[in-house]
Amino acid sequence: MPRESEIISRIRKRAPNSDKVLVGIGDDAAVIRLGAASDLIACCDMVVEGVHFRTEWATPQLIGRKALAATLSDVAAMGGAARFAMVSIAIPGTMPDGFVDRLFEGIFDLAEACEVVVVGGDTSSSPGPLFIDTSVIGECSSGSAVTRAGAGAGDLIFITGTLGGSALGLKLLAQGCRLDDVADNALNVRESVMRRQAMMRHLAPAPQLKFGRALGEARLATAMIDVSDGLSTDLWHMLDESDCGAVIYADRIPVADYAIALAGSAGLDPLRDALNSGEEYELLFTARADDRNRIAELSTALGVAVTAIGEIVPNKGLHLNRKGELLSIEPSGYEHLI
Amino acid sequence: MPRESEIISRIRKRAPNSDKVLVGIGDDAAVIRLGAASDLIACCDMVVEGVHFRTEWATPQLIGRKALAATLSDVAAMGGAARFAMVSIAIPGTMPDGFVDRLFEGIFDLAEACEVVVVGGDTSSSPGPLFIDTSVIGECSSGSAVTRAGAGAGDLIFITGTLGGSALGLKLLAQGCRLDDVADNALNVRESVMRRQAMMRHLAPAPQLKFGRALGEARLATAMIDVSDGLSTDLWHMLDESDCGAVIYADRIPVADYAIALAGSAGLDPLRDALNSGEEYELLFTARADDRNRIAELSTALGVAVTAIGEIVPNKGLHLNRKGELLSIEPSGYEHLI
Repeated sequence: MPRESEIISRIRKRAPNSDKVLVGIGDDAAVIRLGAASDLIACCDMVVEGVHFRTEWATPQLIGRKALAATLSDVAAMGGAARFAMVSIAIPGTMPDGFVDRLFEGIFDLAEACEVVVVGGDTSSSPGPLFIDTSVIGECSSGSAVTRAGAGAGDLIFITGTLGGSALGLKLLAQGCRLDDVADNALNVRESVMRRQAMMRHLAPAPQLKFGRALGEARLATAMIDVSDGLSTDLWHMLDESDCGAVIYADRIPVADYAIALAGSAGLDPLRDALNSGEEYELLFTARADDRNRIAELSTALGVAVTAIGEIVPNKGLHLNRKGELLSIEPSGYEHLI
Repeated sequence: MPRESEIISRIRKRAPNSDKVLVGIGDDAAVIRLGAASDLIACCDMVVEGVHFRTEWATPQLIGRKALAATLSDVAAMGGAARFAMVSIAIPGTMPDGFVDRLFEGIFDLAEACEVVVVGGDTSSSPGPLFIDTSVIGECSSGSAVTRAGAGAGDLIFITGTLGGSALGLKLLAQGCRLDDVADNALNVRESVMRRQAMMRHLAPAPQLKFGRALGEARLATAMIDVSDGLSTDLWHMLDESDCGAVIYADRIPVADYAIALAGSAGLDPLRDALNSGEEYELLFTARADDRNRIAELSTALGVAVTAIGEIVPNKGLHLNRKGELLSIEPSGYEHLI
């Protein structure tokens, strides 16, 4: 393995300049000039090899990309703009040559696509698994941050994009499917494409930064969270913080097309998967019913699908309305057990 | 092990309130209101069990405390004020009950002592060693951050505190000494006290936040770095960035009293240890010779010992003047090999 100073020197060369970054990678700390009239957003997210990812399931670029994506998604869920990132990484001595460079390639590529500047980090050897912790600093207009705590009775519940794909992708990977699998005959091409969609959904999630920020700046969301643990668990988090309950409608949950198609052939229940699928990184938010049209306009303007899936009620608890029948839902999305 | 949500809930209760923290632990991200007219400082530092620390050498409180201290020291080295911290931790399943609570106790105690608010973090299980990554956000007056790059020929080189203690403490711990060792007879009491001083120097370093910030605000330091890799290595880092050289004087290096006393009995060279001792977390800085008296005044006002150990010269290279003889010094402080 290269020495820490060599790794930092290579990472430093890769880091683009920004006129807001007075001091970037290579000093004791980064120095950033932020505009006034804004609040600062800060969060971090850690992934550990063998707990959150496996090196045999994805390229180093995808692993790096997803590590940063998870943290960017948290900034999106506050309605903020992500600005700066730091990356700490502990590297096993067994990693092949070039692994770290390719991992940072994935991080820098996503950072650039999201207009985020990597300003620092730390590297170490690891006598165990690969460990990546990313921290992101963002900002929002003063007082505009959207917490999990603002949902009120009568608010509608919305979700961006589709659900179910990430859990399905994870299952396929665990079963031995890989991104570079090829269809073994012409009939399988469609299924092969859908499998790849599901695996990419799990391995290369896209944080909804633009939509989250637009919601925040327009002050349209009363509460917001990103779907990292699964819709049911994350909605529970929001209800807990907002001290209220919710009813969601089974036929309105936007399950990914390919998840419906593939779940059938695998004997799975796509709705259950969609409710519990973690690491989707879609935005789950509430808004006043009066703002329904403004949200539809934002959805159209930004090209992000948004679905109203239910409403907030005063009584605690989460219920699923399935063809008129009310089922109580426990927070059963997955939580990485520790 | 408790679930992630239980750990976060306990950490959240432990976190004190701050009127600048609009949203703290428990949401997707923290939201912080910073004053205008200031630049933001951001850094992170990661420690890995078996690489940077051993659980059998220190209490969980000391391990947590030191993890944060290293990152706070980086903010001190920029001349900034540390404000907010985030902590990511990956915990092996084998950790005893209460370990994580006590580790966070050490983190929160140091944070409070340094007026730093813990605003977030992440927890995970670890199939390998314990990992701790701490991120700190600080601030300084616009344009006042002190980098490693500003030293110029004729500047004097200063160091706070004393050196050599951390390397000695590390050696003692590696040899089997422990903090709770007791002297086996009255004659050994003095040596036992000094050993404990050296071990505590290694296990519970104190970041020089007040002095670093005062230097920064007074714009007295032309370049600054904290001694984490060892005086010789860290001075090399500064010289590299500042594109100049230095001469330091052997008889001016402030070696810790107990390091001199104990090194003699162990057959070690205390000066060599002082030059190479990492994790001292003292501040190494340069200043114009004209500002010598102002630095002495600051030292007196804040009760922090400061020693002028040499001067910056135009020609590259680092030399040690030992009784008139000039020795070339390579950057031989330790770097955690990866």
